[in-house]
Amino acid sequence: MKTLVEKLREFKRGPAIILPKDAGLIIALTGINKDSKVVDAGTGSGFLAAYLANICKEVTTYENRKEFFEIADLNLSGFKNVKLKFRDIYKGIKEKNLDAITLDLKEPWKVFKYAEKSLKSNGFLVAFLPTINQLEILLKEIKKYKFRLVKVTELLEREWETEDRIRPKSQMIAHTGFLVFIRKL
Amino acid sequence: MKTLVEKLREFKRGPAIILPKDAGLIIALTGINKDSKVVDAGTGSGFLAAYLANICKEVTTYENRKEFFEIADLNLSGFKNVKLKFRDIYKGIKEKNLDAITLDLKEPWKVFKYAEKSLKSNGFLVAFLPTINQLEILLKEIKKYKFRLVKVTELLEREWETEDRIRPKSQMIAHTGFLVFIRKL
Amino acid sequence: MKTLVEKLREFKRGPAIILPKDAGLIIALTGINKDSKVVDAGTGSGFLAAYLANICKEVTTYENRKEFFEIADLNLSGFKNVKLKFRDIYKGIKEKNLDAITLDLKEPWKVFKYAEKSLKSNGFLVAFLPTINQLEILLKEIKKYKFRLVKVTELLEREWETEDRIRPKSQMIAHTGFLVFIRKL
Amino acid sequence: MKTLVEKLREFKRGPAIILPKDAGLIIALTGINKDSKVVDAGTGSGFLAAYLANICKEVTTYENRKEFFEIADLNLSGFKNVKLKFRDIYKGIKEKNLDAITLDLKEPWKVFKYAEKSLKSNGFLVAFLPTINQLEILLKEIKKYKFRLVKVTELLEREWETEDRIRPKSQMIAHTGFLVFIRKL
Repeated sequence: MKTLVEKLREFKRGPAIILPKDAGLIIALTGINKDSKVVDAGTGSGFLAAYLANICKEVTTYENRKEFFEIADLNLSGFKNVKLKFRDIYKGIKEKNLDAITLDLKEPWKVFKYAEKSLKSNGFLVAFLPTINQLEILLKEIKKYKFRLVKVTELLEREWETEDRIRPKSQMIAHTGFLVFIRKL
Repeated sequence: MKTLVEKLREFKRGPAIILPKDAGLIIALTGINKDSKVVDAGTGSGFLAAYLANICKEVTTYENRKEFFEIADLNLSGFKNVKLKFRDIYKGIKEKNLDAITLDLKEPWKVFKYAEKSLKSNGFLVAFLPTINQLEILLKEIKKYKFRLVKVTELLEREWETEDRIRPKSQMIAHTGFLVFIRKL
Repeated sequence: MKTLVEKLREFKRGPAIILPKDAGLIIALTGINKDSKVVDAGTGSGFLAAYLANICKEVTTYENRKEFFEIADLNLSGFKNVKLKFRDIYKGIKEKNLDAITLDLKEPWKVFKYAEKSLKSNGFLVAFLPTINQLEILLKEIKKYKFRLVKVTELLEREWETEDRIRPKSQMIAHTGFLVFIRKL
Repeated sequence: MKTLVEKLREFKRGPAIILPKDAGLIIALTGINKDSKVVDAGTGSGFLAAYLANICKEVTTYENRKEFFEIADLNLSGFKNVKLKFRDIYKGIKEKNLDAITLDLKEPWKVFKYAEKSLKSNGFLVAFLPTINQLEILLKEIKKYKFRLVKVTELLEREWETEDRIRPKSQMIAHTGFLVFIRKL
């Protein structure tokens, strides 16, 4: 049977993907596991949905852009516990009693009113935001809901060359996005 | 029921702990999940064992220092799928058919001969190494076994202050350890 | 004769100081030298003024907070080419034909209208800004003047331990400030 | 008259160059100025020599590889206080009473015995080292001479995009070299 590593290697690439460093921190800090029900949006190429599905009970992921939906549909076909919806999450979340919601969207705060109802008490809302401009709006919007800001953070991965000489690689990814961890009160 | 986040908050602190950023990357890059059998050593305070147990089928963790074993025994008591062994892993690994082995030890290469036999084909060996000196020895030792070096990497977490003004926090942890990802051929 | 290194070691500490990494980048990117006339504000403890004075012809530095002025007066007494003014730079800059102006102030944009007149053509305006909020205002204000934004950047210094083992130090300064390099058209 | 910034822009590129971040830290931490006599090797394209010449009294720079010497000769022609020597610095340093020596060489320790004699008391020796392997040898060699290790450090520069949205640039240079600051006793 193929493991996650092998499956991800065959994923077709569409929009910018969530990297292992960011998916890993989301998993470690939310503490989600085989009993967890998670909603994810937008699906994009489906990388984050795949990381989540690998360890959760059930992942529902929303994508309303046709071209990404098709890529995600292909990529996520091997994940039995993923429900891929061709739907705009800004219009609502049907799932209830969620352990976590992960948002990689332009305007994640538009989902807050639904997230507040769909999350379990103490459930996590995690937003992935490339820009400070998004962060600023989001920080204001959090205050309108029964949410508590846990942490705003970012990870920098520095890979090392070790073949001939030991030294950090010359280039690195300087920024993927800010990760905002929020908990429902 | 308590979630991982709540459980970890109550953990007693002993030796240096594995942080979420590092535990998360191990989880994301190895692709371990609810079907995985993992061996971990040394247990220390049990943080990494707890992160692994939260998502894996079975975690066996080795600790041979009395004072750490006792802390770990206390901390891990709520994790049903963790087997904590008071044993020196440098003397052998009994478990077989493992999906991953995680090593936070002074001399992880002393475990390589056992790891080679205990890991599944394509299984992951992950070493967490604070120093370059350890990395150098490990890189040489890898070549003696049916192992393939996947990646040597490290994560820097930069937290942001957002309460009054938006800016990175003044201080950060500059280094926990180098993460070496190895696969059995 | 004392060198800069020895002099700085004896400096009395007042407010947050400009570190060598930031002073060095300002020097390297502006290309100031023994022919350069520079204005600096606010003086604070005088560290940046001292770095500049060490290599420039003439440094005029403005400080209007009594307690800092006194510390700076003491610290900069050994620098013959520094003119320390007890004056609010938001009220104007008398010096003309400047090669560079360095601003470590809460609202550096309040100096732009004076800087535009006091800088030589192609002269550098460098602002040191701890917060994103300041950066945002500054970026808007730049557009009102005959200025060109060269670069917004920041430096992270990672020190290494080498005594017993080779490894990055455990802690580091995560943020001093954003450096904004601007040139007069 | 052209400033350093304009001159550097016209420099012909040869081997890897010393970046402003590193040149700036060398300048700030050594405290060199218009009274300083400095020796630099290997010249490479001459960038570090140019940064030094811009603020020092006299810079002598050694290069023994023909193709780099020719590039440096062209690049440094406008710097009146630079003496470019077509010579192997591993064979000796003629200059005496130096304030600083900067070494961007494969085996900088081969220069230590000459540096010890050519540096003023308290003078700085700065080595720029891309690899850990070089660092290890250098750390051992330091102990054989009247040298004191001040600091091993490195700078990471993170540039920001500010045009449309505020965010760190996606890519950055992850590593140029480790900077080792040494002082003659």
